[in-house]
Amino acid sequence: MLQKTNFFVYPNLTPKDSLFVIQNAVAKQSVLLIVGNCRVDYEGRASSKLDWGERLVMIKSDRSILIHRSTGYEPVNWQPPGCIIQTELVSGIDLKIRAIRSQPRETLEILFDELSLVTILNLVDKGAFSLYVSEEDIKKSIMLRPSLIEENFRCIIDEKMQPTGFIDIFGVDEEGNPVIIEIKRGTVRKEAVIQLRGYVEPLSKTNPKIRGIIAAPKLGKGIKPLLDSMNLEYKRINVKKCAEILKRSEGSKISDFFTKPKS
Amino acid sequence: MLQKTNFFVYPNLTPKDSLFVIQNAVAKQSVLLIVGNCRVDYEGRASSKLDWGERLVMIKSDRSILIHRSTGYEPVNWQPPGCIIQTELVSGIDLKIRAIRSQPRETLEILFDELSLVTILNLVDKGAFSLYVSEEDIKKSIMLRPSLIEENFRCIIDEKMQPTGFIDIFGVDEEGNPVIIEIKRGTVRKEAVIQLRGYVEPLSKTNPKIRGIIAAPKLGKGIKPLLDSMNLEYKRINVKKCAEILKRSEGSKISDFFTKPKS
Repeated sequence: MLQKTNFFVYPNLTPKDSLFVIQNAVAKQSVLLIVGNCRVDYEGRASSKLDWGERLVMIKSDRSILIHRSTGYEPVNWQPPGCIIQTELVSGIDLKIRAIRSQPRETLEILFDELSLVTILNLVDKGAFSLYVSEEDIKKSIMLRPSLIEENFRCIIDEKMQPTGFIDIFGVDEEGNPVIIEIKRGTVRKEAVIQLRGYVEPLSKTNPKIRGIIAAPKLGKGIKPLLDSMNLEYKRINVKKCAEILKRSEGSKISDFFTKPKS
Repeated sequence: MLQKTNFFVYPNLTPKDSLFVIQNAVAKQSVLLIVGNCRVDYEGRASSKLDWGERLVMIKSDRSILIHRSTGYEPVNWQPPGCIIQTELVSGIDLKIRAIRSQPRETLEILFDELSLVTILNLVDKGAFSLYVSEEDIKKSIMLRPSLIEENFRCIIDEKMQPTGFIDIFGVDEEGNPVIIEIKRGTVRKEAVIQLRGYVEPLSKTNPKIRGIIAAPKLGKGIKPLLDSMNLEYKRINVKKCAEILKRSEGSKISDFFTKPKS
């Protein structure tokens, strides 16, 4: 066993000897990396079977669990944080790790007939994670996935130019009402509300059913009553989701994602 | 350095010494686990910054890269397979790993000032992965996310009972046309087509715009022309996506996700 401040490495543990090591690491909320030959059964609202092969099983401090094969950025099986982690010896020779989630009931069972490497990590990590998405990126995300605004919202292709400035997104809702969306990348301030009202007001004279929505990650203090008083709406935008949508959209052209309004 | 058939462990490598080890492992398409104190910058269609902390960086055989913190089942940063992996020494003391994706251009930069553990895994894994989803599960998935059928498809709450049997899903499309969906968990055979026709035909007399769709993971041989001849449609269902939808829906009640048709 090698030891440094923040890790322990156990090469070639027998499944039997691994029982205490694994349970102890889980109890101490360490990160566990288990490499070995295993098969995996998952039973939940779907079910899956993974035949024998060498994989990396990761059990994190929050008792989430991930099974990684040698390729692919997604784990082949996983369970979210808060699982009950059980270990037992099967037929006296194989190690079974069970990760149980109760709501909804899901069970992930990993059976190891050989462990090559068990590593225990104690990671000190207080680093803040900050994600930045531009207004243009939020706009693209909404165009790629209009349901970020609401179900059955659709973007309309022509960017309408108003005497009061540029509208970020013009679309229609499920009922066919026109919708004007103003996007802010940060916290919504009073200026943004005034700006949106400037777009909505002249158009509301010909169509009183027009809606104005501010799409942004956060509302400033006192902005909600201001929006309400002007009959405008707020839709919280999750920037992490936008980043994922943009990342997954790969090289697609934005114009591929516009939908024309029903005629 | 510990060595077994399928792994190499390098504790406390200096960043300088790690250069060759890492580049060599990437060239040999091994799986690399790098544990150490690092900060991470991502620049792409969004951008992110992760301050200093101890994390696990995983570079897989296909040159996908994942950065895991001690909690959460999702990596804090990642790049898909096929990245260019570059390593360099910064100021003679820190290790920089850069994972570059060209289309779209995205750069993930990891700067380590200390490496606690570098592990190289050579995983032999030919195990087949099989995912099973029941017809009931596919039905639930479609109800949770009707866009699995097509954009703006909506499920209607009342399960219509027909003299010819039970309709799996009854809904309306974007144009307001009624849609009958027959779900199969496996390959679509002739019997399923006959069954669906049995549901659609009596209703088509009063509404010729009614549509019939078979939703299933796979079409049997010769089924496409049969569907065409009966004016029925096929929508391929990705069972993996269904499993994810079910998993993510957690304890939500299915009835929460029905939408009433526009009146």
